[in-house]
Amino acid sequence: MEKAESWLGDTLGYRFNDRLLLRQALTHRSADGPSNERLEFLGDAVLDFVVSEILYRALPDSDEGDLSRQRASLVNDTSLAGLATEIGLGRHLVLGSGEQKSGGHRRESILADALEALFGAVFLDSGIRSASTMIERVFGERLQEFPDASELRDPKTRLQEWLQGRGLPLPEYELVKVSGKAHRQRFEVRCSAGEHGDQSSGEGSSRRNAEQDAARRMLERLGGSGRP
Amino acid sequence: MEKAESWLGDTLGYRFNDRLLLRQALTHRSADGPSNERLEFLGDAVLDFVVSEILYRALPDSDEGDLSRQRASLVNDTSLAGLATEIGLGRHLVLGSGEQKSGGHRRESILADALEALFGAVFLDSGIRSASTMIERVFGERLQEFPDASELRDPKTRLQEWLQGRGLPLPEYELVKVSGKAHRQRFEVRCSAGEHGDQSSGEGSSRRNAEQDAARRMLERLGGSGRP
Repeated sequence: MEKAESWLGDTLGYRFNDRLLLRQALTHRSADGPSNERLEFLGDAVLDFVVSEILYRALPDSDEGDLSRQRASLVNDTSLAGLATEIGLGRHLVLGSGEQKSGGHRRESILADALEALFGAVFLDSGIRSASTMIERVFGERLQEFPDASELRDPKTRLQEWLQGRGLPLPEYELVKVSGKAHRQRFEVRCSAGEHGDQSSGEGSSRRNAEQDAARRMLERLGGSGRP
Repeated sequence: MEKAESWLGDTLGYRFNDRLLLRQALTHRSADGPSNERLEFLGDAVLDFVVSEILYRALPDSDEGDLSRQRASLVNDTSLAGLATEIGLGRHLVLGSGEQKSGGHRRESILADALEALFGAVFLDSGIRSASTMIERVFGERLQEFPDASELRDPKTRLQEWLQGRGLPLPEYELVKVSGKAHRQRFEVRCSAGEHGDQSSGEGSSRRNAEQDAARRMLERLGGSGRP
């Protein structure tokens, strides 16, 4: 754990009082010893609390729907895994041999869970202020500047609003193809919208996801940023 | 708000520095003035954080699945509305006239949201320790003694475990009836299980809910507490 300790000190300026907490935060359940699952439960709640307070204070004019969407865009497996990668957390994960061989140190869920566990561990090690400081360091600008609320709405809603704002009819979605076996199906849909009957296609692991993908492409095609 | 202030002082021993925060926490969106929706966003995160820490420390042998189930059984609209009723919060809600006439001060979601908003308001008013103290007062024993983990698993899982523990076949669920219009449908199912082909029925707003209801009744019939 010495390497992990100096990494954390160098990268984020934090040194654990209880080094076992650091080890546990980095230990995936595939490895021996206490894993980070309980710490992740705690860290998830710590992170939600810290981010919620920051958003509440920084966005006094946002309603609770916008606040929830801002939080969801900051706190999700994809964004957390991205942050974990940025700070170089993957190199210090403790994985079982199977996970090591199959590239577990790059797997999104493993990285996201370990980062949440790290926040939980810092909280246990030295309290909520330290955890909050670490969260602000890891998130950086993402907790200082926030996207326009309308950009966070889902593409289908944004496309609908864009069209309605111009007096145009609602888009139509058509299922074009379903391929692959059960549980691994791929859906392809076609979206038609706009004055000139523009078409876009989308794909995803569910019909809903494919429609969102098609709506996003249609917005790009129509030049709609999502702001009405 | 003077009545609400003395109620809160008498019941929970807390006096707001900023009385406007108390008013806002109790104000439903149907009434005039700033409503409690943003405070509820914040209070929900405060509550989750406080309860998660308490569970983490109180249940060192529980895995993250059990911790999540414990938290879900403590923090949900039904339990929060029950707590709000216990402390007499309903009498101090500020509602629009329509909600007043239709009994909004007894509505589960309105009560639960106001209680969460109250926790958020106390946090803003005087910090996380005060919010934590208030949460512990409101929850009382529920944050000191916790149900056996197995009791928190969903009834279908518990029924399956109970039957498997006795070498009996899995239960069968049959959809008996669907009634009502779309979005207001009622589902009725029949569950068959046990050595003697016992039957139970269940109903709910979805097939899944109806099956859980039937499984719960089957467990009662079979005398299974849910512990294998």
